[in-house]
Amino acid sequence: MFVRNAWYIAAWSDELGDKPLARRILNEPVVLFRDKAGKAAALSDRCCHRGTPLSLGEVVETGLQCGYHGMVFDGAGKCVHIPGQDKIPDKAFVPAYPVIERDRFVWIWMGEAVKADPARIVDVPWHNDSEHWGHRHAVIPIKGNYILMVDNLMDLTHLGYVHKRTVGGNPATHVEAKMETARTQSGVRFTRWMLNSVPPPTYVAAWRFKGTVDRWQEFEWVAPSSVLQWTGAKDAGQGAPEGDREGGFQFKIFHGLTPETETSCLYFWASANGFKVRDAKAADEFAAALALTFDEDKAIVEEQQRRLGEFGEDWLTNIVSDGTRVQMRRIFDGLLTDERKLAAE
Amino acid sequence: MFVRNAWYIAAWSDELGDKPLARRILNEPVVLFRDKAGKAAALSDRCCHRGTPLSLGEVVETGLQCGYHGMVFDGAGKCVHIPGQDKIPDKAFVPAYPVIERDRFVWIWMGEAVKADPARIVDVPWHNDSEHWGHRHAVIPIKGNYILMVDNLMDLTHLGYVHKRTVGGNPATHVEAKMETARTQSGVRFTRWMLNSVPPPTYVAAWRFKGTVDRWQEFEWVAPSSVLQWTGAKDAGQGAPEGDREGGFQFKIFHGLTPETETSCLYFWASANGFKVRDAKAADEFAAALALTFDEDKAIVEEQQRRLGEFGEDWLTNIVSDGTRVQMRRIFDGLLTDERKLAAE
Amino acid sequence: MFVRNAWYIAAWSDELGDKPLARRILNEPVVLFRDKAGKAAALSDRCCHRGTPLSLGEVVETGLQCGYHGMVFDGAGKCVHIPGQDKIPDKAFVPAYPVIERDRFVWIWMGEAVKADPARIVDVPWHNDSEHWGHRHAVIPIKGNYILMVDNLMDLTHLGYVHKRTVGGNPATHVEAKMETARTQSGVRFTRWMLNSVPPPTYVAAWRFKGTVDRWQEFEWVAPSSVLQWTGAKDAGQGAPEGDREGGFQFKIFHGLTPETETSCLYFWASANGFKVRDAKAADEFAAALALTFDEDKAIVEEQQRRLGEFGEDWLTNIVSDGTRVQMRRIFDGLLTDERKLAAE
Repeated sequence: MFVRNAWYIAAWSDELGDKPLARRILNEPVVLFRDKAGKAAALSDRCCHRGTPLSLGEVVETGLQCGYHGMVFDGAGKCVHIPGQDKIPDKAFVPAYPVIERDRFVWIWMGEAVKADPARIVDVPWHNDSEHWGHRHAVIPIKGNYILMVDNLMDLTHLGYVHKRTVGGNPATHVEAKMETARTQSGVRFTRWMLNSVPPPTYVAAWRFKGTVDRWQEFEWVAPSSVLQWTGAKDAGQGAPEGDREGGFQFKIFHGLTPETETSCLYFWASANGFKVRDAKAADEFAAALALTFDEDKAIVEEQQRRLGEFGEDWLTNIVSDGTRVQMRRIFDGLLTDERKLAAE
Repeated sequence: MFVRNAWYIAAWSDELGDKPLARRILNEPVVLFRDKAGKAAALSDRCCHRGTPLSLGEVVETGLQCGYHGMVFDGAGKCVHIPGQDKIPDKAFVPAYPVIERDRFVWIWMGEAVKADPARIVDVPWHNDSEHWGHRHAVIPIKGNYILMVDNLMDLTHLGYVHKRTVGGNPATHVEAKMETARTQSGVRFTRWMLNSVPPPTYVAAWRFKGTVDRWQEFEWVAPSSVLQWTGAKDAGQGAPEGDREGGFQFKIFHGLTPETETSCLYFWASANGFKVRDAKAADEFAAALALTFDEDKAIVEEQQRRLGEFGEDWLTNIVSDGTRVQMRRIFDGLLTDERKLAAE
Repeated sequence: MFVRNAWYIAAWSDELGDKPLARRILNEPVVLFRDKAGKAAALSDRCCHRGTPLSLGEVVETGLQCGYHGMVFDGAGKCVHIPGQDKIPDKAFVPAYPVIERDRFVWIWMGEAVKADPARIVDVPWHNDSEHWGHRHAVIPIKGNYILMVDNLMDLTHLGYVHKRTVGGNPATHVEAKMETARTQSGVRFTRWMLNSVPPPTYVAAWRFKGTVDRWQEFEWVAPSSVLQWTGAKDAGQGAPEGDREGGFQFKIFHGLTPETETSCLYFWASANGFKVRDAKAADEFAAALALTFDEDKAIVEEQQRRLGEFGEDWLTNIVSDGTRVQMRRIFDGLLTDERKLAAE
């Protein structure tokens, strides 16, 4: 069961070149392509003639051409050419999905097209602000349900165990962090402070700290599956907790999870380093360190998926650190209930 | 659902040496072997003693010996030896399938044995006529239902898209070809002429043409899954359309599709070059070029199978170029209906 | 369907070092670990918090720590630590399985814990008697139901076919062996004598015989899936059949089959050479020869499993050499019946 009526990331804008791109999204085969005018489009990835994936075809002047018998479809899914035939039958079309390119993403709407309100897309303005933020991005396939990756981001006590060699550091630091959680209009937001704490390996590799630090983590989940992260540390006692986060080590991360199937998803992530902004090498190194971190999450979540796929979730026990995660899940379950009602109508 | 009461190619004759050969045909495990007297036989590939595949065993004087406990079966499936035991119980046999070797093929009949009339086997006499036709052959596993490969051969407009780099050439040439289709006793036959057309890359590589050509394609589908092809080209205006096809570039191809499962088949093909007949290198190069072409079909059909496996065929739309294909399918569906009636009796 | 109320080998003792070990046993995911005090334990391999396999975690002072959020479980499955939380909820535990280390094995009981009587574990005293017996061991994954491997060991006529290049030798020797079978308290025992027979290749490689030999095979199946083998040969006429087996070539093999799933098992085997006992190289070479032999069995049984998985066993025909195997199966079926009754209560 998916939340269909929502925007998901279908691709990074730079993934759409002159070749079509095949993706599975909400368990539908989708072909993404950029037409000759540069406009992105998304169609069901199966030709209405003989079912061949359109992603095996090529972009031509008038749209996307099937690689089997040459039918051409425009970005709205309308057939605009059938070789050897003038009349185009009404049945000759493929379903199209609304897409919007914004902030380096291609967003897709897999629900009812009339509800596809662009205002509901989460803004990520720093992806366009190279003055103040570096930028690196990637997409990782995860063999796990996407909500397990959101779970992961909603309970940061995992950092001390899963990431002890990278961004984690001492587990107790995370467990004892001061935490505040608040409901937002479209999700949940929490802030954590680890005052006067030892900076973790990744931080030390990227920044010269004098000793202990005041470290913060701000995470905002925007339903159904975007998480905006703003994290950083300044030398302890330099005023960060009072609001002055400038001049230290800080970064933003965008996490976007797109369901492929019930048991797999695509993890789109971008790092935005707010330190050494003009230093390409620093941005590269920082992104490389994050990539390692996300591989650590992937390894855990994929094995977790195998167990939950076999045994379900009913036998599980929540603990105190699940607080925010449980809040997130409650909202998420509400969305699924809405979706079910909609489907029943 | 398969057409069971029909002859299928089980193997090329030269695939049966001194070792048994395991194949899956119409979703049954089959072991083929050539006995010590040189006669080909086909048995169900599971020993009646403990179920071990007989294809793991070896050919002995009296038949095929199971590699586990040594029981021996003759080509009719009768057990002729049980180690340490004189009496052979009535239950000790494995099902056998009629086979006939002809024209370099081992044909197999998986339906009711009494209906296995050798006269129903399609003749391919040029496989024995090395005077006039070169010969090369192969077998390719395809992860697609076999009828999709027959579909492929019944609509040649795909040449311009799937094979544009090989036998295709300009798509419009194929779309505009003059086409005649006729019902035959056991299938459908069509002829296409591309008069005064540019020869495709494969042709040019094999033959020195002066300029444009008169190119013909004759295809005959023999139910359920053999296709006989006779194709060629002569310099334009040299009389080919009027009936004089000698002295130019021409070849025959035999296409035989054998179902392995509902979603996979074996593609037996043979090229018979009617040009440079005594030139082994020309035959090799021509067959190698065809092999590339068939790999192009395989790539398309396997992906098509994935979509049809997921979504069925009911949502598809026929176009004008499907004419012959639709005729073929109608006959084929009739055979399936007959088969269903037979199974119900 | 498994015999749950029985001891199975979960691991060799030396497989449990300082890292947890993941196994699937009777289709349950199990994590084995040795605590800091050296005691072996087995838990269900899924954390009660979020389902993550505990085998991804690590052994800490108080037990096994989950690698995701740091909960710690002791060898009895009790949660002894939740990061950031003093109270441990009653639901915070994972199922534990009785284990006993004995004779180099870690035995596990997957049935009702109260019935886990250590006296029911089969004794293998020569594993601790390095004075008289060499020792080498291994574990091989087999993609076949475990009872097929027991079948294999209960009908030695397969040696002449499956192992003709290794321990087999002339098939007729095995078929004509003098055989005696007897019911034991917990299984079946049989003895075979091949008097004045040609020694097989493996024997000849390990021992200098003068010519033909008196060769014996004693096999005892202890339900549900241990087989104790004592085999050897002396020069013909040197008194072996009369009871004097000393001074020749002899060895014991322990075969232990542990079900992973209905279609796969783990094959724990150990060789104990009773010849050249202090010669490490002889023990190595002999174990290496056996390993080849077991690979031959594996190849056959895995293909047999594929057929039985597809077609069941009802169509199979027993032959004379199945005598002991059928006796074994009858006892085994009785155990399954008992198990079903127990499950129904």
